[in-house]
Amino acid sequence: MNISDIEEILKAHFAGSIPTDEAAAKLRNLSYEDIGYARVDHGRAARQGFPEVIFGQGKTPEQVCGIFEKLLERTPNLLITRTTSEVFGQIRNIFTDAEWHESAKMIRVIRDRTDLGIGEISVCTAGTSDIPVAEEAALTAEAMGNRVQRMWDAGVAGIHRILGERERLQNSRVVIVAAGMEGALPSVVGGLVAVPVIALPTSIGYGASFHGLAALLGMLNSCASNVTVVNIDNGFGAGFAASLINRK
Amino acid sequence: MNISDIEEILKAHFAGSIPTDEAAAKLRNLSYEDIGYARVDHGRAARQGFPEVIFGQGKTPEQVCGIFEKLLERTPNLLITRTTSEVFGQIRNIFTDAEWHESAKMIRVIRDRTDLGIGEISVCTAGTSDIPVAEEAALTAEAMGNRVQRMWDAGVAGIHRILGERERLQNSRVVIVAAGMEGALPSVVGGLVAVPVIALPTSIGYGASFHGLAALLGMLNSCASNVTVVNIDNGFGAGFAASLINRK
Amino acid sequence: MNISDIEEILKAHFAGSIPTDEAAAKLRNLSYEDIGYARVDHGRAARQGFPEVIFGQGKTPEQVCGIFEKLLERTPNLLITRTTSEVFGQIRNIFTDAEWHESAKMIRVIRDRTDLGIGEISVCTAGTSDIPVAEEAALTAEAMGNRVQRMWDAGVAGIHRILGERERLQNSRVVIVAAGMEGALPSVVGGLVAVPVIALPTSIGYGASFHGLAALLGMLNSCASNVTVVNIDNGFGAGFAASLINRK
Amino acid sequence: MNISDIEEILKAHFAGSIPTDEAAAKLRNLSYEDIGYARVDHGRAARQGFPEVIFGQGKTPEQVCGIFEKLLERTPNLLITRTTSEVFGQIRNIFTDAEWHESAKMIRVIRDRTDLGIGEISVCTAGTSDIPVAEEAALTAEAMGNRVQRMWDAGVAGIHRILGERERLQNSRVVIVAAGMEGALPSVVGGLVAVPVIALPTSIGYGASFHGLAALLGMLNSCASNVTVVNIDNGFGAGFAASLINRK
Amino acid sequence: MNISDIEEILKAHFAGSIPTDEAAAKLRNLSYEDIGYARVDHGRAARQGFPEVIFGQGKTPEQVCGIFEKLLERTPNLLITRTTSEVFGQIRNIFTDAEWHESAKMIRVIRDRTDLGIGEISVCTAGTSDIPVAEEAALTAEAMGNRVQRMWDAGVAGIHRILGERERLQNSRVVIVAAGMEGALPSVVGGLVAVPVIALPTSIGYGASFHGLAALLGMLNSCASNVTVVNIDNGFGAGFAASLINRK
Amino acid sequence: MNISDIEEILKAHFAGSIPTDEAAAKLRNLSYEDIGYARVDHGRAARQGFPEVIFGQGKTPEQVCGIFEKLLERTPNLLITRTTSEVFGQIRNIFTDAEWHESAKMIRVIRDRTDLGIGEISVCTAGTSDIPVAEEAALTAEAMGNRVQRMWDAGVAGIHRILGERERLQNSRVVIVAAGMEGALPSVVGGLVAVPVIALPTSIGYGASFHGLAALLGMLNSCASNVTVVNIDNGFGAGFAASLINRK
Amino acid sequence: MNISDIEEILKAHFAGSIPTDEAAAKLRNLSYEDIGYARVDHGRAARQGFPEVIFGQGKTPEQVCGIFEKLLERTPNLLITRTTSEVFGQIRNIFTDAEWHESAKMIRVIRDRTDLGIGEISVCTAGTSDIPVAEEAALTAEAMGNRVQRMWDAGVAGIHRILGERERLQNSRVVIVAAGMEGALPSVVGGLVAVPVIALPTSIGYGASFHGLAALLGMLNSCASNVTVVNIDNGFGAGFAASLINRK
Amino acid sequence: MNISDIEEILKAHFAGSIPTDEAAAKLRNLSYEDIGYARVDHGRAARQGFPEVIFGQGKTPEQVCGIFEKLLERTPNLLITRTTSEVFGQIRNIFTDAEWHESAKMIRVIRDRTDLGIGEISVCTAGTSDIPVAEEAALTAEAMGNRVQRMWDAGVAGIHRILGERERLQNSRVVIVAAGMEGALPSVVGGLVAVPVIALPTSIGYGASFHGLAALLGMLNSCASNVTVVNIDNGFGAGFAASLINRK
Repeated sequence: MNISDIEEILKAHFAGSIPTDEAAAKLRNLSYEDIGYARVDHGRAARQGFPEVIFGQGKTPEQVCGIFEKLLERTPNLLITRTTSEVFGQIRNIFTDAEWHESAKMIRVIRDRTDLGIGEISVCTAGTSDIPVAEEAALTAEAMGNRVQRMWDAGVAGIHRILGERERLQNSRVVIVAAGMEGALPSVVGGLVAVPVIALPTSIGYGASFHGLAALLGMLNSCASNVTVVNIDNGFGAGFAASLINRK
Repeated sequence: MNISDIEEILKAHFAGSIPTDEAAAKLRNLSYEDIGYARVDHGRAARQGFPEVIFGQGKTPEQVCGIFEKLLERTPNLLITRTTSEVFGQIRNIFTDAEWHESAKMIRVIRDRTDLGIGEISVCTAGTSDIPVAEEAALTAEAMGNRVQRMWDAGVAGIHRILGERERLQNSRVVIVAAGMEGALPSVVGGLVAVPVIALPTSIGYGASFHGLAALLGMLNSCASNVTVVNIDNGFGAGFAASLINRK
Repeated sequence: MNISDIEEILKAHFAGSIPTDEAAAKLRNLSYEDIGYARVDHGRAARQGFPEVIFGQGKTPEQVCGIFEKLLERTPNLLITRTTSEVFGQIRNIFTDAEWHESAKMIRVIRDRTDLGIGEISVCTAGTSDIPVAEEAALTAEAMGNRVQRMWDAGVAGIHRILGERERLQNSRVVIVAAGMEGALPSVVGGLVAVPVIALPTSIGYGASFHGLAALLGMLNSCASNVTVVNIDNGFGAGFAASLINRK
Repeated sequence: MNISDIEEILKAHFAGSIPTDEAAAKLRNLSYEDIGYARVDHGRAARQGFPEVIFGQGKTPEQVCGIFEKLLERTPNLLITRTTSEVFGQIRNIFTDAEWHESAKMIRVIRDRTDLGIGEISVCTAGTSDIPVAEEAALTAEAMGNRVQRMWDAGVAGIHRILGERERLQNSRVVIVAAGMEGALPSVVGGLVAVPVIALPTSIGYGASFHGLAALLGMLNSCASNVTVVNIDNGFGAGFAASLINRK
Repeated sequence: MNISDIEEILKAHFAGSIPTDEAAAKLRNLSYEDIGYARVDHGRAARQGFPEVIFGQGKTPEQVCGIFEKLLERTPNLLITRTTSEVFGQIRNIFTDAEWHESAKMIRVIRDRTDLGIGEISVCTAGTSDIPVAEEAALTAEAMGNRVQRMWDAGVAGIHRILGERERLQNSRVVIVAAGMEGALPSVVGGLVAVPVIALPTSIGYGASFHGLAALLGMLNSCASNVTVVNIDNGFGAGFAASLINRK
Repeated sequence: MNISDIEEILKAHFAGSIPTDEAAAKLRNLSYEDIGYARVDHGRAARQGFPEVIFGQGKTPEQVCGIFEKLLERTPNLLITRTTSEVFGQIRNIFTDAEWHESAKMIRVIRDRTDLGIGEISVCTAGTSDIPVAEEAALTAEAMGNRVQRMWDAGVAGIHRILGERERLQNSRVVIVAAGMEGALPSVVGGLVAVPVIALPTSIGYGASFHGLAALLGMLNSCASNVTVVNIDNGFGAGFAASLINRK
Repeated sequence: MNISDIEEILKAHFAGSIPTDEAAAKLRNLSYEDIGYARVDHGRAARQGFPEVIFGQGKTPEQVCGIFEKLLERTPNLLITRTTSEVFGQIRNIFTDAEWHESAKMIRVIRDRTDLGIGEISVCTAGTSDIPVAEEAALTAEAMGNRVQRMWDAGVAGIHRILGERERLQNSRVVIVAAGMEGALPSVVGGLVAVPVIALPTSIGYGASFHGLAALLGMLNSCASNVTVVNIDNGFGAGFAASLINRK
Repeated sequence: MNISDIEEILKAHFAGSIPTDEAAAKLRNLSYEDIGYARVDHGRAARQGFPEVIFGQGKTPEQVCGIFEKLLERTPNLLITRTTSEVFGQIRNIFTDAEWHESAKMIRVIRDRTDLGIGEISVCTAGTSDIPVAEEAALTAEAMGNRVQRMWDAGVAGIHRILGERERLQNSRVVIVAAGMEGALPSVVGGLVAVPVIALPTSIGYGASFHGLAALLGMLNSCASNVTVVNIDNGFGAGFAASLINRK
């Protein structure tokens, strides 16, 4: 709902083409579609630069499919996160070109591949086990019109592995760093580059990792000043925020 | 145990119709029924305005059915929360008109539909995934004699969705707001209405949501002064408290 | 911002008495007053049934006084919470009839004493040390037009003390129960009455009370279904919510 | 290892009946039996008044059975806690009179039923769902030579239920109170009796009960001074400590 | 409120010496005295074997003195815990024989020194820094009619220090063990004796001791089965519970 | 240390102008200056786009001044965070044009005011009490060459206050949102704009805010996908990251 | 990457046998092998005295096998931790002499049995249930060229069991102590020996053990000064660190 | 208490030079000295390779001085940790050559400077603010007969600073790494060296550092296998353990 929308409604009303109560209602009832169990937010693309994404967790397959159908009509690219291969079976019946990404547990539709970014987004992981979360970030960033560089398994205990990628990192417009356990890699990367770093804690670890809490706290306390943080295992959010930073 | 009960016993004792030791015992042994594994509290309706509800979790099906049979004799409406469709199978053999609510995992008996409320109770959710918990609240409120308005999927990231419901919200006597993740919706709703708001945190989320803790803490710290809070996923409690607020 | 406000602006615009851009601005810029460090929200009384309260903590005395002066013009009753006797010295220079409540650390202005409540609000404490927090609740409820009954030091370890107040409790429209340490009193009171109970955890205790966390968790897990909870030491919030429940 | 044992070894050594190195070894190697994966502590009965109990969790069935056989030779009564019906199948092959207690998940051997207690031990629960943990306490106390009174489902939200048991409680030598959720019952019982109360938190609850943490914290902060606490769900420990308090 | 009290009231009522409403009131208003900010519980001695103790924290000096005066009339021995030397100055004006215990921050009145115990109570500490808390326990137990043995600084890192006290420990009727840091001493003592052990965690430590949490958790998880636990720094509670265990 | 530096050293070595061991040392000893208690990192500006900032907390005034002098020689703009007016007294003796910012507790030197940003950075707060932290962010962003818009006291309980700023927010290149208590404002703002939002939790609040934890968790769980988070009260980090996002 | 490696590259470059850009690349690209999902770190043996170990958790069987094959070519001894018997089935097809250790869930290859230690490493457990974690430590230490003594089930509640092992403990070069529940054993052992003790908390326990947190905190707060700690259930880390301490 | 001590006592007893009861007492009462508030453990040097250290926190100055005098008689080197300059004033009256270390808050007596180590101990910090804790470690290690290298302010955000010290680090026998905030430095150092690394978390930081918890968790989850951890701010423990590792 931006100011020009409001002005348009006001002008139409002034011109007498819509009566007062209808104009008032329009101003209140902005562009979402109520399908009972969900209010599908068709204005989000305008507001945020990308259509609504379906968060699969806690929804029935019927709900996911219902929302998917509504969104598919209006948006070329679309993501369903935290879902299952069972749901993918049903989605495919609706749209056969949907992709299934096993490690990221994500369904993806890409119909528009325009490059919208200033530069490249790098996505690194500290370990092999962090790849699924990082992959969710990379797939999201691609769907939002970015070129993505992947660098897996470059954790700090073998520091030369990430040092060896310094040049590629420094040439990125933004870097996403996924790490579990102690979550130290974003601080090291943050110190190497002059661009924003998005730290992406993963739940990889055991014992006192407390399902990613150790990594999360480490990243929040990073001594590198260019680091901001997203939720544990929130690859989607990291990819989304990186895309906006990289947006022309 | 109110003062008139005590006076009645005292008068009967004074009149000599009950001996001293019996009177003393009556004063101690108030109105519950001991069935071994449970003390069924028949006085609760008088004290609290609603019969005892059966908390299904941690009880064997036999225990649930045993308590159900005792309560059914004395109360028209009855709820079993946090139960399973297996238990429902057995309950149906006892009382065929019992209802099964899959999303809320609740068994419900409604035999008295008198409207006991001053106004309407609104129940909102931030997302589609919060519906099961909100539904538990709505079903409880209905069973306690209230009219209920349901408003699903109106979270703050698309703020116009809740703003569009402002009028319905403002006309309610009390509003229940269910939200997981950051649990921000009750603060926004609280700021829009001049009635009590019951914040109902849900365990929807992952990572640093810590199974609803983030939402719970957010709601407890609400900057809207008319917000009180119940336990994570405690739809029943939210519906119950709302019913007492709405009671004529 | 209610629907009739919008319609009025629209009608004025349609009549040509205000131009389009001004109408659009009005719809956006609703009734608050920006004084630099604060946006004084004059519409709150209309929206919530009471003027904005000044939360003293973290504000400079100058800021508190500045906001106080703005609010004093428009509202008969006014509260400043979590403040100091130093600030009171300055407030008194602005308005000589302001009251200072030492135990609650609250400044209060009452110029309108109309009774707005359906019935009485009871405020109990488990111990003598909980009185300051409970007093904040009681003072708030009085300022919002309620009659308040105070019952101090009736904790569960001497259960006859609260049982002796049963009748007064049962005759209240709503009960606020303040308790620190294990926070058990709200559950007991909740089981005695048929009205809403607002549990108010206090930070009284030591060791594993963790500054009120034990009481807070206990209250959130209350087995009495009519209990809702506010933040630790949030007497103001308890009094505010109780006032809305008791509002005619 | 008490002083008389040491003196006996010293006298035997002085008398020349055992050589120096053997005496030194005896002083070091006190009465346990090493069977590889366990050091079966046959001196515990002497030291603590009861034979070693087998903690079933985390041990293979073979380990449980091996330790069981060693202990069975020397002690009339014996407990295996936190075990399974599968293990019971194997134990029964070793000793056919072993008992299986389904709700408490405990295997019990009782061959000596001498009454060793001063008085009776009462075991109460707040709810029906707390019975399995309370039953573990009761079974343990019986195996250690005590008479036990069971009082189930007497939680504080229906306070007359526990008040009705006041006399039985006051005649006990020690009271065990099991409660989940807010864990308020021990404080109330503690205020009613003049004997030690052992608070036994259970993991019954959900959301902010955090698997029994809320109950545990509540009990640790009890305002009743005669309450001590054991671990969440540690019925065995509660029964054991109560037995020592009741020991003649 | 025991059954004979009730019978006496009933008989007086039956005899006509008290009217019905007065009898009813007596049954409700049991033996506490309401002095505004406190309900002084004169029945506690009868119910719990010791008069009410004044918890000094969070009370004004005036409140402490007011309650002290009320209690002093009816009870020979009396404790004020968590108080200050300033309060002691005022208490001494009321009762000159009151004692001030600097390390425990406790005021004590002892006028009755009858020995009420079966045996002796041992109080140990792991370190010198734990003495203040342990002293609170010892002073309480003495005031309640017990003989007390003190054993300071016998922590597990020099295990021979506690082993050297084994005989004295084994001859006690109950043992209180105060420890901060890792809180390991109660488990070791628990394994040495056949009597109840009350574990008393202290807030001594730093860093990951989290103000006594480490010690508390350690004690709750003790592998010695005869250990129960009180709150961090709750010397009073440990001394009180030990006294009831030792009561003839 | 970028690839061209390495190549230069290699070429000089190849040319014989520096010997092998000196070249090896250069490759190891990159551009920092060791002054005993600190390694002043002169390469940071090159690597990160801004000189090293002095974190004042935990350093002696002498250490702060020593580092300040070293940095002042090489960089036009410079910040000292989390410091005191006492330290400022000493800094002023070194450099008279240093600024002292009382609310942010920051010392700032600005000698280069070139605009380096693509657009504007907006900094909002939920309340007046959040201003000091937000001011730290704004001062940092200005020192790094950005234009900053400040919007104070626009919390969600009066939602029209932030809605009134929608246009200014939407025209920013990046938005920083500071909030304490429940921390809901970033989610609402995130839903209104199509640019990156940096959520900045503050420690404003009490009780279950746990010194900013509630706000932090809320922001990490934001349902708005364009939100990333920095540490509690880390205004500096928010300003720094925003500057890099806005860098041309 | 040590200094001699750098000098060698510099000399080769100076001699003209490698061109400048290749030398620069070599300096950056140190000795790891990138196989897509992992950067196999062949330099680790040189740097740390042991080849990289494969952390099985969170990797697909294909990834584990791929890394295994790369490492097997270069190192005689090799470990896969936190894996399954299913993975072992595939590993065996690659290398038939691999060992499967059921309790430790570890795959081990030992082809070099040279004794590299100064003395012996003792590994103790408090209980039988702690054996699997302790076994992981022991197996690791053996694979790294150490002689290992195992001492199972010597917890503090039967203190003579560990005292009986004093001599063997005192003759070790380093001691690993695994314990769950209260985790007290490392403090006792630490007080008995003059060598480093590595405390290894296990997740054995229930309730307030919080999956090993109680043991971990206890060990971190050990009053024995020679104790350092590893993560909960991190047998591998304990064995690794002990091996380096024992390295000649 | 080692086996030869026991044999000596036995032989003296056998020879008749000491009677039975005296021998038994000796075996129980090993070498500590009871001075009322403390049991000064003179056997610790023999058992642990260093005299008892006085933990100053929570002890009165009189207690510290009393223990100091007892220890001074028997040991050349001595430490008092977590003490104050006031205590130092009193200690100096007892022993004029005692040293006061302001940053570490430590009193130290060194009369024996024999080098007892195999090699050198390196102590690094991530930042300048971590120096006080690291200094406590370094001072301890020196007092225990080690050569110490100090390397301050080499945190990971400027990774070349620690890389520049690689050679010195690799030539150490053991490395202590102190870090607050995210605590990442030990992992990086761990990956660079082939010797044991002791991670020493400090409480430096704010917000989500939770007084060192973030650093502690990070270090416990280190992906470098040669890292063990001590308590937050426990410089003494780190220095002590490092000394035993380095002991010839």
